[in-house]
Amino acid sequence: MEETTTGVIRLRAMARDGILKFPVVAVNDADTKHLFDNRYGTGQSTLDGVIRATDVLLAGKHVVIAGYGWCGRGVAMRARGAGAIVTVTEVSPLKALEAAMDGFDVRPMREAAAIGEVFITVTGDKHVLRAEHFRQMPDGAIVCNSGHFDVEIDIPALTKMARKVVREVRPLVTEFQLRGGKRIHLLADGRLVNLSAATGHPASVMDMSFANQALCAAHLLSHGKELEKKVYGVPRAIDERIAQLKLASMGVRIDSLTDEQKTYLASWEHGT
Amino acid sequence: MEETTTGVIRLRAMARDGILKFPVVAVNDADTKHLFDNRYGTGQSTLDGVIRATDVLLAGKHVVIAGYGWCGRGVAMRARGAGAIVTVTEVSPLKALEAAMDGFDVRPMREAAAIGEVFITVTGDKHVLRAEHFRQMPDGAIVCNSGHFDVEIDIPALTKMARKVVREVRPLVTEFQLRGGKRIHLLADGRLVNLSAATGHPASVMDMSFANQALCAAHLLSHGKELEKKVYGVPRAIDERIAQLKLASMGVRIDSLTDEQKTYLASWEHGT
Amino acid sequence: MEETTTGVIRLRAMARDGILKFPVVAVNDADTKHLFDNRYGTGQSTLDGVIRATDVLLAGKHVVIAGYGWCGRGVAMRARGAGAIVTVTEVSPLKALEAAMDGFDVRPMREAAAIGEVFITVTGDKHVLRAEHFRQMPDGAIVCNSGHFDVEIDIPALTKMARKVVREVRPLVTEFQLRGGKRIHLLADGRLVNLSAATGHPASVMDMSFANQALCAAHLLSHGKELEKKVYGVPRAIDERIAQLKLASMGVRIDSLTDEQKTYLASWEHGT
Amino acid sequence: MEETTTGVIRLRAMARDGILKFPVVAVNDADTKHLFDNRYGTGQSTLDGVIRATDVLLAGKHVVIAGYGWCGRGVAMRARGAGAIVTVTEVSPLKALEAAMDGFDVRPMREAAAIGEVFITVTGDKHVLRAEHFRQMPDGAIVCNSGHFDVEIDIPALTKMARKVVREVRPLVTEFQLRGGKRIHLLADGRLVNLSAATGHPASVMDMSFANQALCAAHLLSHGKELEKKVYGVPRAIDERIAQLKLASMGVRIDSLTDEQKTYLASWEHGT
Repeated sequence: MEETTTGVIRLRAMARDGILKFPVVAVNDADTKHLFDNRYGTGQSTLDGVIRATDVLLAGKHVVIAGYGWCGRGVAMRARGAGAIVTVTEVSPLKALEAAMDGFDVRPMREAAAIGEVFITVTGDKHVLRAEHFRQMPDGAIVCNSGHFDVEIDIPALTKMARKVVREVRPLVTEFQLRGGKRIHLLADGRLVNLSAATGHPASVMDMSFANQALCAAHLLSHGKELEKKVYGVPRAIDERIAQLKLASMGVRIDSLTDEQKTYLASWEHGT
Repeated sequence: MEETTTGVIRLRAMARDGILKFPVVAVNDADTKHLFDNRYGTGQSTLDGVIRATDVLLAGKHVVIAGYGWCGRGVAMRARGAGAIVTVTEVSPLKALEAAMDGFDVRPMREAAAIGEVFITVTGDKHVLRAEHFRQMPDGAIVCNSGHFDVEIDIPALTKMARKVVREVRPLVTEFQLRGGKRIHLLADGRLVNLSAATGHPASVMDMSFANQALCAAHLLSHGKELEKKVYGVPRAIDERIAQLKLASMGVRIDSLTDEQKTYLASWEHGT
Repeated sequence: MEETTTGVIRLRAMARDGILKFPVVAVNDADTKHLFDNRYGTGQSTLDGVIRATDVLLAGKHVVIAGYGWCGRGVAMRARGAGAIVTVTEVSPLKALEAAMDGFDVRPMREAAAIGEVFITVTGDKHVLRAEHFRQMPDGAIVCNSGHFDVEIDIPALTKMARKVVREVRPLVTEFQLRGGKRIHLLADGRLVNLSAATGHPASVMDMSFANQALCAAHLLSHGKELEKKVYGVPRAIDERIAQLKLASMGVRIDSLTDEQKTYLASWEHGT
Repeated sequence: MEETTTGVIRLRAMARDGILKFPVVAVNDADTKHLFDNRYGTGQSTLDGVIRATDVLLAGKHVVIAGYGWCGRGVAMRARGAGAIVTVTEVSPLKALEAAMDGFDVRPMREAAAIGEVFITVTGDKHVLRAEHFRQMPDGAIVCNSGHFDVEIDIPALTKMARKVVREVRPLVTEFQLRGGKRIHLLADGRLVNLSAATGHPASVMDMSFANQALCAAHLLSHGKELEKKVYGVPRAIDERIAQLKLASMGVRIDSLTDEQKTYLASWEHGT
């Protein structure tokens, strides 16, 4: 089973190259995983990490979020909910359009860099913040990552631009003093800020991700023999079962379709 | 080409039954259609219709929204944005869970009926509001539909419960005086309230839907011969092209991947 | 009794100049008036007016709001709730600071003019939008007023800048074609857009304003003889009574202080 | 100088009783204090405290906030921004009405107790949560205070209701096991959760509060002799000066009135 967006991207690349050695279930692709864990979990815990590391007031702060995937929109939503003025950067036209219509300021990172005070990368890609961006940032900019390992921020480039690097000006905060006097504050060495500076996702959203792991493990146990060396999605029945269990644990009850409604939905003779 | 969620459901049913007579492109399934038109278009225009028909102040009002599909979440988002206290009803555990984690009160319609002041159906199904719900509603409840034709509200049942029906207590508002004295106000005879009481979706979101229609028509013209009598999705290239054109028309510029980033995303040797 | 912010400003000026001829109650200053009517009423009805006049989609639109008084914050709150990207302009440092910490982009009108697509003035002052701003605006900018008469927008200046003025390109929309080809759309001749293009405030917020009028009229009837030729506030008892009546009409019940709590609040011996 | 709402209440009571020994400036009453520190500071830091102590996911959680003063509305605003479903309780009809029109569910604590999962008191009064409320709460309820000392929650009553009290089930969390098996989790012994479980308000909002302290101290030094043994407000000039300094520190520039606008505002001959 693979739990992360970036892990799944790699496993699919391996499957494509014919070197995957066993069947894999892309747990990340389950609705009960990425719609919740990636969005509400990353959203809350990332800002939690930023606040613990820096004690910054988010109200009125310009926060730039690189990436509007499920993690990115979680962080954007929560940053706005905390009173920040949020700019989103994207490479996908579709996601950029959604971000804009969700009321976020969307622009290229080169421009965003000049107005941001807190930068959070959640793209799953490499060197999203690099020399050309550091040069634009205002003095005191806070830079962190909640996406993929420590590669989203080009730390070697930042180090090279600095005349002095002071580790731990606060716990988990490294200050890069650039030539010219500007300071950039890197959190947790560019590693996942929600894991490094906070305690990761709350249990009550990880429960669904782990339920996917557990039920998919059981599924592999009983059906593994029939499967090829490919990346599989989570069976829909498992996904729906987890949603039902989660709702029950939250005490939320919902409606069910009447027979008349089921018939109506399935037919093409009526309502056309 | 088919433009609506409910139309696509029916065409797929026809394809399944082997009676579809020609290839169809499900324009509704394009990201540049349902993520925008259904969400931002229906969201704004539905509340616009409710306000024009009733002059109701949404701030502090209990609004119940049946259905948390793309249309439903658009309406829920905008109702909250207008200061309403929003309850969502659903039949899908997954959508119910999303609604709950988006901060909406989720409960069965039987219970929601007792606390709602404005009810909006956006399910695509039949008799979502019926006798058992009308019985629970408070005096003065406003009931309307922004989903699918005039079948979402069981108007025959409501008529049967009424001792008197007064058409046009305001333009487009019919008052049902139930036995016992309670009044229920039905908007636009249960037809789509955004089309009946307002002017439908704004041009600047329909542009994307119609661009899908136009480009898919061109696609069918050149590739129609190769296609079977099935329901096809919108080709991804068309979807992305429309997003790019729309962004350009809005003056929004975005980033593009560097070569290094493309390589990193495609590889499994790095970042693992 | 005087109902509006701008009216009260003038009456106080008259009292200061010794020319007020009778006692006046500043109904606008009642909490149950300006906190509600000005904020939730103007907020909803102003956007209602803009949408009816222009059919513009607010999602993703850059909306510039001049003034962050009670009306302005109502409009800003609702514009954001409709998905707009909102910029606020102010002359008061305190209000500007609140707008910024409420997560709005705050900047001088000269700069805001260049990025706005819809401009709404709600300041109570004169010529808030003038030649220097029209010059910055993008082609197609929509300009309207929800503050004070038709003086907030410098229409004579706009007319002088135009090579052609087309009335009613849509009902209530006048198009000014500037030299160079840029078009600016003025709504309702710069008069109050919520009254001109929509139906003004909903009844369920005006009820509180009118209750203030009625109860203050009764108050003047019984106490008028004792009053001087000054501007008086609304008696606190009237204000609180209206709040109680309104809550009751909404079916909202609240707590009351226990005796122990009353004692605690009034004392300085405990809890210090 | 007195910094807190509850402190000012007590000092006014002392002044009223004629036992205040020196002039006091109610720093809390400055706009640049209570509109910011109480709202944005308490809002952010209170939820920060709750998350650090409990690791609870706020998305979809029923949060009950007692009190809709400046602190309460800050907490309510941020809890909603974090995805919680927020109920507000109040004793003031005016504040209750604002909470309702701001889109919050408002009801008496007896009812709110039955649906809440996290309870936060911010009233400045005593025993806001007491035996009658603990009895209604669901198993696992989290109870904390961000208002005034440790008296807002009736801890003696809770202790008496418990058959077992387990300190530190997590750091700063005490579990009260009630007869019948229900558990209630009290944070930080009912002391201010933002100070006990987090690090209090961020520096960038305390700066304004302390600026008020400093400038009022200077004011007392030069004008103290002329003052009586009363509670004074912060001079308006100090308040405005701090707002200007803060805006400058944030890099926010604003407009200023033209001479024409000043004249217009001051006159009653025009615009009437």
